[in-house]
Amino acid sequence: MKEVAGGCCAAKGFSASGVHAGVRRNTSKKDLALIFADLDCTAAALYTTNLVQAAPLHVTKRNLAGGTARAVIANSGNANACTPDGEETAREICAALAKELAVRPDEIIINSTGVIGVPLPAGIVTDAIPALVKGLSRDGSDAAAAAIMTTDTCDKQAAAQVEIAGKTVTVGGIAKGSGMIHPNMATMLAFITTDAAITSEMLHAALRESNRVTYSRISVDGDTSTNDMLAALASGLAGNPPIGQKDDGYRAFLEALNHVNGKLARSIARDGEGATKLVSCLVRGADSEECAEKLAKGVISSSLVKAMMYGADANFGRVLCALGYSGAPFDPRRVDVSFLSSGESVAVCKDGMGLPFDEILARRVLSRDEVQILVDLRGGAFEAEAFGCDLTEKYVEINGAYRT
Amino acid sequence: MKEVAGGCCAAKGFSASGVHAGVRRNTSKKDLALIFADLDCTAAALYTTNLVQAAPLHVTKRNLAGGTARAVIANSGNANACTPDGEETAREICAALAKELAVRPDEIIINSTGVIGVPLPAGIVTDAIPALVKGLSRDGSDAAAAAIMTTDTCDKQAAAQVEIAGKTVTVGGIAKGSGMIHPNMATMLAFITTDAAITSEMLHAALRESNRVTYSRISVDGDTSTNDMLAALASGLAGNPPIGQKDDGYRAFLEALNHVNGKLARSIARDGEGATKLVSCLVRGADSEECAEKLAKGVISSSLVKAMMYGADANFGRVLCALGYSGAPFDPRRVDVSFLSSGESVAVCKDGMGLPFDEILARRVLSRDEVQILVDLRGGAFEAEAFGCDLTEKYVEINGAYRT
Repeated sequence: MKEVAGGCCAAKGFSASGVHAGVRRNTSKKDLALIFADLDCTAAALYTTNLVQAAPLHVTKRNLAGGTARAVIANSGNANACTPDGEETAREICAALAKELAVRPDEIIINSTGVIGVPLPAGIVTDAIPALVKGLSRDGSDAAAAAIMTTDTCDKQAAAQVEIAGKTVTVGGIAKGSGMIHPNMATMLAFITTDAAITSEMLHAALRESNRVTYSRISVDGDTSTNDMLAALASGLAGNPPIGQKDDGYRAFLEALNHVNGKLARSIARDGEGATKLVSCLVRGADSEECAEKLAKGVISSSLVKAMMYGADANFGRVLCALGYSGAPFDPRRVDVSFLSSGESVAVCKDGMGLPFDEILARRVLSRDEVQILVDLRGGAFEAEAFGCDLTEKYVEINGAYRT
Repeated sequence: MKEVAGGCCAAKGFSASGVHAGVRRNTSKKDLALIFADLDCTAAALYTTNLVQAAPLHVTKRNLAGGTARAVIANSGNANACTPDGEETAREICAALAKELAVRPDEIIINSTGVIGVPLPAGIVTDAIPALVKGLSRDGSDAAAAAIMTTDTCDKQAAAQVEIAGKTVTVGGIAKGSGMIHPNMATMLAFITTDAAITSEMLHAALRESNRVTYSRISVDGDTSTNDMLAALASGLAGNPPIGQKDDGYRAFLEALNHVNGKLARSIARDGEGATKLVSCLVRGADSEECAEKLAKGVISSSLVKAMMYGADANFGRVLCALGYSGAPFDPRRVDVSFLSSGESVAVCKDGMGLPFDEILARRVLSRDEVQILVDLRGGAFEAEAFGCDLTEKYVEINGAYRT
């Protein structure tokens, strides 16, 4: 498997575009993204488990009932959630886009991201559709990735290639963060394209498997959004024998999908609102993967661990405390903890007890922009890694006046 | 029932003291507290559900096996948690105190609060015990309450009286916050004294009932501490007919206990690390109390709701979002939300949809130092209220360099 450039246009058969429609006022930032497939694609999506779901998710669910799609449209600046006419707005946008692209409205995946509870005027979006479609390009991934950003400070793109039965299969995608991030069986907006030939059932299965070990293992602030969506389109243009069951081809495809989703997920965590660093927690020696995952997520979700990471203060008691309340079973008297970055490591806890350590080394390790917390339970053979970020004054600043 | 002064010395038979022992260096702040009963008390305690539990909790559990106690000792500045010799240290302190007070070591409730994983030298505490005991006074609640403070900005004391069978029964107590607060079946340090005559079984039952509707309904940062403890001593000096079952006397006692615990719990939430205001969420119209509680706690625990409260930004979508991922069932299309403070209210959501509202009124309501989020599910007849605080830059500042 190898990484390639091109984001959501890396796979054969996809073009993309991004424009400023005006959903976000007082700025010229792009706020409307489009991904378009040259031909009918198999398609699948996962959605937020939040009981409050945004209107476009309901529309997309119905559109994807047949397992195929042609296009993805998404705006930033307004979540189209918790307003009376949200579904009508989403359907209007789909209808206008379908007309412009000469496809059916039910071939469109639609989503929105931004403020909740404020009506999204359909006209602002539909007026921009001609320019959006005109802008479609094989190099359009940058524009589309930029257009779905909200408080993100950088775009999120990834692509990778694998061989399946002698054919090169490409998987690519774009995603956005960067607050209200605590995916639960789904994620923030992430749109994946691939030229693999794969049934919508297998695509859905691969999304579920991949999501479990990527987006479901990140957290910025513990808040699961109303608009989370992970959607994928597969054009089949790679010419591989169609994937219709969990065979070697499926596993190769899943490997590339995991690579792309993993990279996008980590970039969401790293760009968490106000964050200065990517913080990961690898839990080893657990009795099950589920247990390791629960513990790792407990640690990277803790406000106290996050604030300590910001201050580069090696207060490992915060880590033990978070492990202890995570809800997963382990023996507190066998836990070893160390902090790692750039090949340096500092052991701070052995058998659940604090170790004397070099404070200068610890501060250097914790001050880098990627820090791993390594927890060894010295029990079973399972492990899992979760990704988050530090908690900074900037997070508070951003969210103290999000609407204004 | 009426509120009275005196904190943990309000009830008959108790004196208290607080001194600077030197556990906290570079400061002259009091860091060692003592509550002493004139005679044998029935006693009970609840402990953190964190799998990682501090050494003094293990010692206290053994000491309370017989259901009686004479004294409570607690230091701040060091949690005596996750160090090799923690239990030995706790036992040494109990032994020294027992000798000075002429009681048995197993009649002592002991706890610590502060940094985790750093050894607590027993000598620092034991050297201060003579002065601590000498300082015991019927007016000592202020000193004891001050000595258990860590990042708390004010002490937490409360006391109330009820009549039981013609006798006046007093319940009082002290508590401390103010970070790592997300009590789960237990609380941060809270020590309750009463002159009620009550068996240790009924005292334990009352603690459990009261904790469920007080400390278990607050959150500052979602982190459940390794040292949480809610302990109570009952001297019996009020002369009421001994409470040995859940009769009218028990219910009157529980009312006073709930009042004291409720006040202490709210003062912990209000004084959350870095907080500028008390934020409560009252959920009404739920199908069960459990459901209402889960939703209310979900809202006050959300980082986004907390940051929005700090910024006085009426972004009600954050509230709906938090309700939606709380894990409790409700119908999102029937939810009404309003914000209240000082007799003013602003309705922001009806039937799950945003309402137009007066932004100036909303900012005024949210800018006060006590704000209630009222959620009406318009379903069943159950309700619950949870208490938290806002999330500020100060929280990050405090916890970025907690040890230094």
